[in-house]
Amino acid sequence: MTDPTPYTPPEVWTWEKPNGGAFASTNRPVAGATHEKALPVGKHPFQLYSQGTPNGVKVTIMFEELLEAGYDAEYDAWLIRINDGDQFGSGFVDINPNSKIPALLDRSGDKPVRVFESAAILMHLSEKFGNAFQVKDPADRPEMLSWLFWQMGSAPYLGGGFGHFYAYAPQKWQYPIDRYAMEVKRQLDVLDRHLADRDWIAGDTYTIADMAIWPWYGGTVMGWQYKAGTFLDVKSYKNVVEWAERIYERPAVKRGRMVNRIGGDPAMQLHERHAASDFDTNTEDKRRAG
Amino acid sequence: MTDPTPYTPPEVWTWEKPNGGAFASTNRPVAGATHEKALPVGKHPFQLYSQGTPNGVKVTIMFEELLEAGYDAEYDAWLIRINDGDQFGSGFVDINPNSKIPALLDRSGDKPVRVFESAAILMHLSEKFGNAFQVKDPADRPEMLSWLFWQMGSAPYLGGGFGHFYAYAPQKWQYPIDRYAMEVKRQLDVLDRHLADRDWIAGDTYTIADMAIWPWYGGTVMGWQYKAGTFLDVKSYKNVVEWAERIYERPAVKRGRMVNRIGGDPAMQLHERHAASDFDTNTEDKRRAG
Repeated sequence: MTDPTPYTPPEVWTWEKPNGGAFASTNRPVAGATHEKALPVGKHPFQLYSQGTPNGVKVTIMFEELLEAGYDAEYDAWLIRINDGDQFGSGFVDINPNSKIPALLDRSGDKPVRVFESAAILMHLSEKFGNAFQVKDPADRPEMLSWLFWQMGSAPYLGGGFGHFYAYAPQKWQYPIDRYAMEVKRQLDVLDRHLADRDWIAGDTYTIADMAIWPWYGGTVMGWQYKAGTFLDVKSYKNVVEWAERIYERPAVKRGRMVNRIGGDPAMQLHERHAASDFDTNTEDKRRAG
Repeated sequence: MTDPTPYTPPEVWTWEKPNGGAFASTNRPVAGATHEKALPVGKHPFQLYSQGTPNGVKVTIMFEELLEAGYDAEYDAWLIRINDGDQFGSGFVDINPNSKIPALLDRSGDKPVRVFESAAILMHLSEKFGNAFQVKDPADRPEMLSWLFWQMGSAPYLGGGFGHFYAYAPQKWQYPIDRYAMEVKRQLDVLDRHLADRDWIAGDTYTIADMAIWPWYGGTVMGWQYKAGTFLDVKSYKNVVEWAERIYERPAVKRGRMVNRIGGDPAMQLHERHAASDFDTNTEDKRRAG
């Protein structure tokens, strides 16, 4: 593909109008709040403001894993509807000036602290609970850190790159789809080779590195992301598929995937989570209603 | 812009040929080594394999800051020429299976460990030297982690997104340039608001969060990245400019920018670094030759 329309960028870029595609109405070239809106606050020390996207799911899985393991990590999870622009409310911007989910308000210490960026929240919660879900051997820590940051630097090519141009852009263009499909397949191959002779990403145990990578790359090989399973031939990454299925079997992962989720099967959606019993009640209610 | 050529993605993506633009010849949809090549190893505990891109510069600045502060962080910095595909040599892939610079081999402990991803290397080196260049007050740690991970998740939109379509793609297309220019300006505005009432990114001191953000976003407001200073109106982000200039004045930053740098002014390039005296010698040699 070449675009026969010649285009010369202006000397200075200006924002003229939404340029089409999903999320066009919420994307802006400026930061800050668009409207005054306080955030709700529940009774638990941890207040999570999120939506059940891959980045959001990392954190709800972490909370559910901590609870499953017996830590006192009770949390209130509030739904931030991205398509409605909730992330531009003044209260949310105070917690995350970058206006992205997930964002955490931690009131468990002497004074409340904010944490944003999904992997920062994973690290923060892990440290809060005695380095829970980190590698046991300190010699494995560099490997865990490497893969944790690898996920943060790589997923924008899967989400903001491939996902955008394959699923959300106003029309299909070959060049960017080729560019990002190639990169996503390379990333999947990196993981596939790495997982050829080990069960977990770092060390010999399930860690926050697995939790960070699973929602994006596990979700892709499970065929959930962008309905691109066939296009990307995800089944060929056999080691990633086995690892993804192993993680999917964890009860905490199944619960974590339901929290703040909107769209799809109503029985899979727990819009807000304030107690462990919310999973049963909510699901039962939904089944009865459905 | 709309592309009048209809494009329907195939059912299964296949790699047909390099799709044009800079780096087209080195981008691949598979991971792993393309050729056998051992890495050189010097006399110091730390062996850095890198090139002087923004991601590479983060780490050479960290080493120079550690040395400037009196830590025993002597290192050998070896040049990995990305355009020549050095990152696909077997030795490099052993250190970083993701085939990206920078990559570190740390031989200072009981057994050698690898670390990859620039921010993971910053964190690793900081921890190695008693949490050097981290916030002093533990209450500020969540803020530092948030911004450190913010950088890793945001810069792909600046580099792999905006930079690619504005500077490297085989032709200019309006839609991706608009998309990524909008996002980069939003990110710069996030930083500008954050720096309005503080000198450093987190806490009240210069940390690894500043070191991670400066090469990409400082480099952008200094007008170095992609010659896009006018296009992005970078001077309007006054707080970011002041912060970037403050960091640029640091001697360790000036040295760090020279290491593994290729292209541009020869006096600014120290292709390999093995001792503190290399800066003087190299620069003098270059000046004499130039």
